[in-house]
Amino acid sequence: MHRSRLAGFIIDCQTADLESAAGFWSQALGLPLQGDASTDPGYRLLQNAPGDLHVEVQQVQHPSRVHLDIESDDIEAEARRLETLGAKRVSTVRTWIVMEAPTGQRFCIVQPQSARFASDANRWD
Amino acid sequence: MHRSRLAGFIIDCQTADLESAAGFWSQALGLPLQGDASTDPGYRLLQNAPGDLHVEVQQVQHPSRVHLDIESDDIEAEARRLETLGAKRVSTVRTWIVMEAPTGQRFCIVQPQSARFASDANRWD
Repeated sequence: MHRSRLAGFIIDCQTADLESAAGFWSQALGLPLQGDASTDPGYRLLQNAPGDLHVEVQQVQHPSRVHLDIESDDIEAEARRLETLGAKRVSTVRTWIVMEAPTGQRFCIVQPQSARFASDANRWD
Repeated sequence: MHRSRLAGFIIDCQTADLESAAGFWSQALGLPLQGDASTDPGYRLLQNAPGDLHVEVQQVQHPSRVHLDIESDDIEAEARRLETLGAKRVSTVRTWIVMEAPTGQRFCIVQPQSARFASDANRWD
C-alpha cells in the first residue's frame, strides 16, 4: 500500500530574473511570497494557496509552462502506478521523478510536503 | 473596487479522446470525474480538489499544457490590473479573457465559480 495526492503546481518561468517573475505571480494571484531568494535558490514559494496547495515559481531553462506535482510516500510505487495508467518516466532529479502524461504534459512525483497528506492522500493497494 | 482569486487550473489536452485523457488525470490525481461528457462538451470537471479549486480537463487544438484560471467579479477591471503588472491581453472567449504573463504562460480571467470567492477573494481598490 502506498499513498499519493495532488500536491500543487509549479509555475516554470524561463527568465533571468526570478524575483520579477515571482513578483508578478504573487501580485497576479494575490498570494504573498514566502522567504527570500536565499531560501531555496531557483524557487520562490507563494503562501496561502487554497487547500494548502504548494504553489511555487521556479526558474527554468526550458520554455515557460505550468506543471503539476503529485506527492507520495513511495515515489517509486507511485511512478509504477502512473506507468500502468499510461504515463512515461522521463528522468529522476534529486528526490523526485519527472513523468510525462499520455497527453504530453510533464509532471513530477515528489515527497510528501503538505500538512494534509496524512489525512487527505489517496490509498493505492 | 473589484475582487479576484486563484480559481484553479485547467489541464489542456490535445487529444481526439477527451474521455481517455480525463480518465487518466482522474486516476492519476485520485479525483473523481463529475457528470459525463454531455455536461459541458469539451470539458470534464474533476471533483474534490484541495481548497475547492476548480480542476478541469479540457480538449484543445493547441499543444497540451496546464493553465491557471483567476476568477473575478469584474473581468475587465482584473484584466486592466494584470496589464499594469505586465501581462498582455490575448483574446476574449465567451465570458472569459485569455491573458499572457510576462514570462509567457497563458492564463484566463473567468467569472466567479468557487463557493469560497465571497469569503476568500482579494480586494483591489
